[in-house]
Amino acid sequence: MSHQPSAAMLVIGNEILSGKTRDANVQFIGESLANMGIVLAEARVIRDDHQTIIEAVRDYSHRYDYVFTTGGIGPTHDDITAAAVAAAFATDLEINPAAAELIGGDPDHPRMKMAQIPVGATLIENSVSRAPGFQIENVFVLAGVPSIAQAMFAALSARLQRGQAIVSANADVFMKESDIAVPLTSIASANGDVEIGSYPFSRDGTYGANLVVRGTDADRVDAVMNEVVSAMSALGGEVVRRA
Amino acid sequence: MSHQPSAAMLVIGNEILSGKTRDANVQFIGESLANMGIVLAEARVIRDDHQTIIEAVRDYSHRYDYVFTTGGIGPTHDDITAAAVAAAFATDLEINPAAAELIGGDPDHPRMKMAQIPVGATLIENSVSRAPGFQIENVFVLAGVPSIAQAMFAALSARLQRGQAIVSANADVFMKESDIAVPLTSIASANGDVEIGSYPFSRDGTYGANLVVRGTDADRVDAVMNEVVSAMSALGGEVVRRA
Repeated sequence: MSHQPSAAMLVIGNEILSGKTRDANVQFIGESLANMGIVLAEARVIRDDHQTIIEAVRDYSHRYDYVFTTGGIGPTHDDITAAAVAAAFATDLEINPAAAELIGGDPDHPRMKMAQIPVGATLIENSVSRAPGFQIENVFVLAGVPSIAQAMFAALSARLQRGQAIVSANADVFMKESDIAVPLTSIASANGDVEIGSYPFSRDGTYGANLVVRGTDADRVDAVMNEVVSAMSALGGEVVRRA
Repeated sequence: MSHQPSAAMLVIGNEILSGKTRDANVQFIGESLANMGIVLAEARVIRDDHQTIIEAVRDYSHRYDYVFTTGGIGPTHDDITAAAVAAAFATDLEINPAAAELIGGDPDHPRMKMAQIPVGATLIENSVSRAPGFQIENVFVLAGVPSIAQAMFAALSARLQRGQAIVSANADVFMKESDIAVPLTSIASANGDVEIGSYPFSRDGTYGANLVVRGTDADRVDAVMNEVVSAMSALGGEVVRRA
């Protein structure tokens, strides 16, 4: 799985860590990146704390090709992401004229806080509620509300260098994971060019595992999945290959 | 908000980062800890990679009072959490007799991989599917399947030192965040002993914000929420205080 840019994600917000809100952005961005051949290597959920955001942004910006942040760019006192990202790159916030025009209305209105963008940043369009996100160096700063984060991701995706897309094949096996572990391990060992995952489930009292083969070569993924399905069928269990 | 133990969480699994699965454990554990007066300070989602897990466990174990991991303790080849946590504490895995008895059956069966527990660890009961989690030093190692993670958390919670519980008050304001930012900021500045969060929403085309006041003193939380509600009503917007 070579030739794939790397990415990391910072989910910024006390409300995720207190359990008030369940994050939806890691799943969406992780899946979108995978479809573009970009590997989401890691994600962190951090508090709305100035110094914590600065350190996390710097760390990820050095270590990964792309960094995505979600949360903390609204107009209220607890929205501190833009100022922290500016500080991480040793720059200041300024009223961005294009952002101010997008937001519109009275320049003294508190919503103009959302036009304060780090010097040198490029805007990211928000087709849902206008106030833009922004990109500074390799860091993309998005809203936390999932519908807005998704619109912003769509607007920025043309800026990302795609890698070799990851192809996957999927099958449900209606046996306990421990009963399939031995053949699965030997297939995984013999096919190091693909990744084989086993994800247990329980549906209506029936135990099983969803098996996933992932790789960049569609023929190899298909061949290894065929091998998996044969091995599972040989154990006498029901196997349903998914589309 | 003093006298509160700190915690961090490691969500271990490629399937979360690829978007295949949406994590549910951060929300559950974050909320459960908050109810016990323990602050979830940070969470990381990392890949099923031996060295990555070792480094993350060591880092968090030093920096926080409690660490919770979810994922990667099943019987298949991609379940590598137990071995990595053992390595993080420079110890080995061994067949734990109590775990083997809980799991039951043939000692040569592959499910016995789940009885391999770091030397010196204490088991955590699994009332859903028997194979236990474990605690080593301040690190609690739980399954990734949410129903099992929740059962394990219930089984271990008596081992945690509770802090001052965090009390919260909640109100929905049917105005745009930018229209409430000014009074909200001055109330937040004047009441540094509580935390005020503003979380925008859009429901059926209506914009609003959910305002949350959090703190350890119930009377102060209530008083500040009353102040918030009065200020919002004075702006002419609809305010609905939630139970």
